[in-house]
Parts: sequence; C-alpha cells; structure tokens
Amino acid sequence: MPETWASSGVDLHLDRTGPRVRADLEGQLREAVRSGRLVPGLRLPSSRSLAADLGVARNTVVDVYGQLVAEGWLVARQGSVTRVATRVPAAEAVPAPAGAPRRLRYDLRPGSPDVAAFPRSRWLAAARRALGTAPAEAFGEAPDARGRPELHEALAGYLARARGVRVSPDRIVVCSGFTQGLGLICRALRGRGATTLAVEAYGLPHLRGIAAEHGLRTRALPVDEGGAVLDGTGAAAMLDAAAGLDAAAGLDTAGGLDGADAALLTPAHQFPLGGVLGPERRSRAIDWAARTGGLLIEDDYDGEFRYDRQPVGAMQALAPENVIYAGTASKSLAPGLRLGWLVVPAHLVDEVAAAKAGADRHSSSFDQLTLAEFLTSGAYDRQVRRSRLAYRHRRDHLVAAVRRHAPQARVTGIAAGLHALLELPAGLDEDEIIARAAEHHDLALNGLRSYSPAAGADRPALVIGYATPPEHAFTGAVARLMAVLTQALRNPG
Amino acid sequence: MPETWASSGVDLHLDRTGPRVRADLEGQLREAVRSGRLVPGLRLPSSRSLAADLGVARNTVVDVYGQLVAEGWLVARQGSVTRVATRVPAAEAVPAPAGAPRRLRYDLRPGSPDVAAFPRSRWLAAARRALGTAPAEAFGEAPDARGRPELHEALAGYLARARGVRVSPDRIVVCSGFTQGLGLICRALRGRGATTLAVEAYGLPHLRGIAAEHGLRTRALPVDEGGAVLDGTGAAAMLDAAAGLDAAAGLDTAGGLDGADAALLTPAHQFPLGGVLGPERRSRAIDWAARTGGLLIEDDYDGEFRYDRQPVGAMQALAPENVIYAGTASKSLAPGLRLGWLVVPAHLVDEVAAAKAGADRHSSSFDQLTLAEFLTSGAYDRQVRRSRLAYRHRRDHLVAAVRRHAPQARVTGIAAGLHALLELPAGLDEDEIIARAAEHHDLALNGLRSYSPAAGADRPALVIGYATPPEHAFTGAVARLMAVLTQALRNPG
Repeated sequence: MPETWASSGVDLHLDRTGPRVRADLEGQLREAVRSGRLVPGLRLPSSRSLAADLGVARNTVVDVYGQLVAEGWLVARQGSVTRVATRVPAAEAVPAPAGAPRRLRYDLRPGSPDVAAFPRSRWLAAARRALGTAPAEAFGEAPDARGRPELHEALAGYLARARGVRVSPDRIVVCSGFTQGLGLICRALRGRGATTLAVEAYGLPHLRGIAAEHGLRTRALPVDEGGAVLDGTGAAAMLDAAAGLDAAAGLDTAGGLDGADAALLTPAHQFPLGGVLGPERRSRAIDWAARTGGLLIEDDYDGEFRYDRQPVGAMQALAPENVIYAGTASKSLAPGLRLGWLVVPAHLVDEVAAAKAGADRHSSSFDQLTLAEFLTSGAYDRQVRRSRLAYRHRRDHLVAAVRRHAPQARVTGIAAGLHALLELPAGLDEDEIIARAAEHHDLALNGLRSYSPAAGADRPALVIGYATPPEHAFTGAVARLMAVLTQALRNPG
Repeated sequence: MPETWASSGVDLHLDRTGPRVRADLEGQLREAVRSGRLVPGLRLPSSRSLAADLGVARNTVVDVYGQLVAEGWLVARQGSVTRVATRVPAAEAVPAPAGAPRRLRYDLRPGSPDVAAFPRSRWLAAARRALGTAPAEAFGEAPDARGRPELHEALAGYLARARGVRVSPDRIVVCSGFTQGLGLICRALRGRGATTLAVEAYGLPHLRGIAAEHGLRTRALPVDEGGAVLDGTGAAAMLDAAAGLDAAAGLDTAGGLDGADAALLTPAHQFPLGGVLGPERRSRAIDWAARTGGLLIEDDYDGEFRYDRQPVGAMQALAPENVIYAGTASKSLAPGLRLGWLVVPAHLVDEVAAAKAGADRHSSSFDQLTLAEFLTSGAYDRQVRRSRLAYRHRRDHLVAAVRRHAPQARVTGIAAGLHALLELPAGLDEDEIIARAAEHHDLALNGLRSYSPAAGADRPALVIGYATPPEHAFTGAVARLMAVLTQALRNPG
C-alpha cells in the first residue's frame, strides 16, 4: 500500500478537555475512512502510539477502534494491527445491492436481534463439544437432506417443550433460514399442483417474491389488531382502504382463505402489525385446512419472546397434519447463522426433503451439530431467557419514551418479540420522517408502507425494531427517534 | 428406555485368544444394533466394565466403540455414556431417501474425501480466531448476498495463487456447495433468456436435474480420454455407441457447443472418465464463447490435486468474462461444510448474487469467517498438501494392486483427484460386480453407467473413489475390490 497513516495527512482535532473526546475521535476517524482519506487496507497506528500522539487515554483509542471495527470501517486481526477495511461503502467496486442501506450510525429497523450480543464464546464452546463427539460421517455428503439426527432430536425436544409443537425427529427438515424454508415449501406445494398461496396483507415483501419464483400466485389476507382476518369480511378500519387498494393492485382479498391452497401466517405475533391470532381465528383456520386439504404455514419467527404472559403455544399443535411449523435461530441467536427448521406433516415431509436436496443437498453439518449441542446443553434456553429480559426492558423503555415525548403517537401490538408498531397521527408522512431521521439524526427507520404492496397513506406508522441496536447505542437511538417525532409533530406539514 | 444392556440379552461370544477378538466384538455388536436387539437410545456399559466382563483389554472395547461411533451405530457424548444411536437404518421411521445406500463397511464410491481425516481441531482453532475478530455485523442479515468480504479476499488471493484464476474479491459469490452454485447460475442464465445447457455426456446425474428444474434443456457433449469433445465430431470409440444412445434418449450430441447458451465442463479432471482438457480444446471452447456470447462453467472440483505434474491452471484465466469458475471445499475439506464459490464475469455477478439472495439470502457467516481464517492462516494450504500426498499414495497403491491381482483391468485417466476410472474387460457386467461386492464383500462401488443416462454396456468400468475410506480401512477396501475383480475375471459370465 503506497499510502501510510502519516502520508494520508489525516488531521484529528480533538478538544482533549471536553466530555466528548471519544465521540469526536470516533466521528473524525469514521469520516476519514468514509471519505476515502484513509485508503482501504491502510495500517493504523497502534492504540498506544495514537493515544500518545493525541494526548488521550489509551483506552479511549481502544474503544474507538473497537467501535469502528464493530461498524465495519476497520478490521483488526487478533494480536496484530488494525487496518482500514478493504470493503467500505465508499470503495465498493460493484454497486451495493439494490435496497442496501447507507450505513447509518443508529438503526431501529426490524429484522435483527442485537447481533453485538451474539454469545460468541458460548457458541464456540458448543462447536468444540460438537466436533469432539461427531462421527466422521457427519462431515461427509449427508445421506439425509432433512439434516443431522443430533439436531432433529434436540429440536424435537426443545420445540415440544418451549412451543408446544407436536413433533418427532423425522418430521424436521433443517433449512438455511426461513427464506429457503418457504422456497422448499412452495416447491413441494407446486409439485402437488397448488397454484395459490394466501399471505398476510402486511408482511415481508420478499416472501411474495419467493412464492412467485416457485410459480405460485399470492392472494392477500386482510390483517387487523388481531392478526390475519380469516372470515372473509375484512372489517377493521385499517383494512378497508387496504382492501380497496389491494383489489386495485390485483390482490384479491375477498373470501379469506377460500380458493387458496395454502396460507402463510404469523400467529404468535403478526409481523409487522403486532397482533396475536386468537383462539377463534385459529380454529377457523384449522377448520378450513381440514375441510379443504389446504396447508397452513406457521411462521413462528419470535414465538419464544412474550413479555406480558406465557407464550401462546404453536397453532401447529391443533392439527399437525395440516400445518407446517417454521422456526428459526435468526431472532434468538443471529441471522448470519442461516439456521431454520420446518416441522412438516408426514404426508409432505419427503417432498420437502427432496426440495432441500435439490436446492443445496443439506445444511452445513458444522452449524447443525453446533446448534444441537447448544440446545442440548441448555445454552439456547439461557440465551433466550437473557434476550427476553433485555428486549422486554427495551420495549418498556420505548413505550415510556413515546408516552413522555410524543404522546400523540402510540405503540401498539402485543408486548412480544423484537418489534413494535408505532402508530403516528394521521397526516404525518412516513417517508418524510424516515428521510429526516437518516439525514439529520443518523437513524435508520422503516415505515409500515414498506410492508404492504398496496398500503395507503392514511394510517402512517413506523415499525420499530428495538432489538437491533447494540446495548450501548439503544437509548441513543430511542432519543433520536423521539427527536424526529417531536420535530414531525411540531411541523406536521 | 425400558430396555437395558442386561435385559437385552445380547450374548457376545468371543474367542479371546484368537487374533480377531476386536473384529469379532465389533461385528457382533454391530449386528446386535443392526438387528434391533439393542434398541435405539440404549445405554451401553462403560468400556472398562464391558472389557472386564468379556475378559478383554479395555483398549479393545474403546476401539470397537470408537469404530461403531464413526460408523453411526453408536453415539458418544464427551465424558459421558455411549448409547445406541436413535437413528439406525433398521429403526428408520421414514423410508430412507431413494438411492440411499445400505450401510456397507467398505466404501470406494467417489464423491467424498476421507472425512475421518477432516482436521477438526484446526477448523475449530480457525473458528475461534475468526470469532475473536469478527465485527458484530458479521452475524446480522448480510447486506451482500455474495458473502463475507473476509472470505472474498482470502479466496481471491488463494485462487489466483493456487489455480491461476483471474479474480477480484467483488466477483466472488459464496454458495452452499456446487449444487446450489449451479442452480444460481442456471437461474441467472434463464433470466437472460438462455434455454440450453451443454453438459458432458458422463457426469453427475443430478446436475442435469438442476438445469431442468431451472427451465434449461440439456444437450450432451461427447467425452473421451481428453475430456469433453468440442469439435462436433464425437470420434472416440467410447462415444459412438454413447452418441447413438444419447440420440435415442433424446440427448442431442451433434454439433458440440453450437446451439447451447452455456456449457458445463470439468477441464482439470473430467468426472468421471478422468481426462484433462488439453490446450487445443480449451482454445476451441474459449473461441466459441467469445464468438457466440456463450458462457462456460468450469467445475474445478479437485483442481488442486494433481500427482504427476504441477496442476494445470484454470481455464477461466483465458477469458474471465466468458467463464464462471466454480470451486468447492467439498474435496479439500469436507462435503458437510457446504462451502463453494463462484468467480463470475462482471456482467453477470449481480444476477448471480440476486439469485443467491432469493435462494437463502447468504451463506452461513460463521462458516465463511472460519474458512477465511483457515485460508489466511495457511491451514488450507497445509491440508491440501497433506491430502494430496495421502491420496497420491492411495492411487499408487490402487494401480499397483490392479497390476498385480487383476491385470486385465486398467486404471485410466490422469494421476489426479480423488477418483480414477477402472476399465474392465468387455463382457463383464458392472451391475453384477457391484452387487457381488455389496453382498459378499461388504464393499460399496459405483459403475460408470450410473454417470450417464444413456451409457451402453459395451465398455464396463468402475469409478473408484480411493479417497473415501478412512485411512485404516483403505487397504482392506482395495483388497476386497481385488477379490471381487479376481472372482469376476475368473467367472466372467
């Protein structure tokens, strides 16, 4: 690298007596990397020598380096030098994928647990134990696309206990997260002649795309504060406009489940509106499935996380032969692990397994064995318990902050999971608020409209992922959200 | 479990003075589990107490338990009891997937490295180092479906150096093995309007299925001792019959590459015939691609393993904008890791990345970071070097054994990789030999016919995977192969 720290001419101005020395240093270093002043791969001074140069405490530099490593601007090799990352947004040779966010300092978008809290050493310890006892064949071509028997057994025990799922090990297909899992289900359905998947009118946008890729049409199920509306009436106020717009967009919402071959639901905690599917609607769905032979897909992405009562058991238990139960480690552990599982009715499991084999043979044996050990040792339970406590506190903090600083807004949905709906007064513009948050507050937000292809603008809301920020940044993120809301409420135009 | 060791009534008869005490004990225990006499989950006596009961050395029992754990009949938890596995072939609740082999003691089928030699503690050490320095965001939803930048950089450096690939990190898409990789390529091709993929007439059967699943027709390229025949003449004797049968089966072999949108080749070491694609044919393929805009897919599954000379560099280097280079850790490390990579021309990388995102978002971050560390630390190079030496010796041993015991048979193909073709005298029946090997010699074999949908019976051959057996079982496997061949050559009917 022709450039060195010295020749880069980066000039750090620090008010060493001020209270924000660390934040200043961090901000200036970050900007120096972002702007390209410090080139990719450049070697930074040791924390000791930079601290000496700047006249600050060595720990200050250590903390700043650590934060910038966590954010991806710098890379550190254990016991070695710290360098500017070779892949920083400004130096991308290929344009970032469409939709990839500009790197903002604070992030309250849903979809992720606090990844800084991923229990690395416990995961590694589980990996060590798993590797120590795994048979050699565990590393070969797996004979069974459904996955490792060790994981099937551990999951069967866990799911029965923690979610009330009715499951035997041979009904489980391990997949690389829910995206792949849904794809496998769609392929199996298509193979049976299915044509139509009913999906909740508000939900993750890419899920419709997965169905479409596999040749399935989608129809929208209206959603209200009680989850998916399954009686074909679509009565709630939030939906009428949505239903009209859905129809205009070609999404048929009349008739609920009728005419669909399968339905994708989030019964424990509707994403993103936040309601829980009550007993009556669950029965209605089960009756439909039994009557028509239709299949229900229960996306139980955060079912272990309930803060106001014991978690409601899985819907699958009501009719194991009509429901595919889908779970994931993405929220309880980390999305990066790509670990998900399907509990499949006996009459469908071979087809789903065959779809898995055709997709990528089987999931990583290493990760499966590690997860099996993590479950068996109780570490998974402990992690869920820890996270549940932390996220509950965060939700409470968010609710209290909104009550105090922006009482015209309302946090709705059950006290559960890693996200909540923040309803805004009519007249506010989601997009404006999101833009302002990014531009002026370094805060990333998602609005409700991004979760429905035809959502109207009359019920603006934000979908707040309170689990996303690292612990040290959470209250700061909420403070910035309050600042944005306060500003917007003062100037609603 | 109602059953105990004592109540199972398993009666082990051992001639404690004989030379085969260990083999006897192993055989009897294996049979007791296979037959269900020892039920799934049953707790076995400690090695110390069983040895005392039987009057044999404790190490004998330890070795037997270890072997049966490695074979999957027993499971052992570190520092804890040994139990009968809960998933044993006899106890399968769901029929094993079609094609799953009966569990034979010796295995010379190709497709796997020696998984007993997978360097577990080195892999774990790399995982520990990787986890120690990974930024928190590495565990979140990856912003880049192509994979982790750490792995891109490590692979780019390695591939350029070891295989002569022309590559920058942003051209790499990490995938879950070659099965998924080919699927992504097919999806990207289909998105561009491609209709036809040319595949080698002899090759892995499921690859055609992948193309078909993605809406691509396949056409067969004839193959001879010099790899794929690309001049449209299909001259070699082995092919004429194949070409005729291919045509009969609807596989159009006339015209070589003409009319195809893409072609899948194994240039470094044709699988399964074993030839290397020479410079003239490589040029011909590159010319075709440049002339027609067609795409070449270079499946470099074992390119690092060449025993008679330095490995031939990747074909991709001749035309990086017309060739997708596909590599994998399946042969150098383990198939169970599900780690593969594609080096994609600039004009196609976004589409392949989008296909990856649609399939399963991205590959496991944990495995990617570990592989990156494994590569960067030099451990991967050392593992390849170790394996290369071991497999070279095994090939030499196989060749010598055939020369001595079954000289009418011939090992052909270049001295490379993890497999070799064992040509048999005309008149021998592949299927009979394979059946006899399984029934009488506990040996699993694959015949050449299983690698071509329309292969004739006039050139019988076995495809020998000499890397597959664990080290301690290799010479025994070869001895059994010699016994089978000797018998067949004596009684050719």
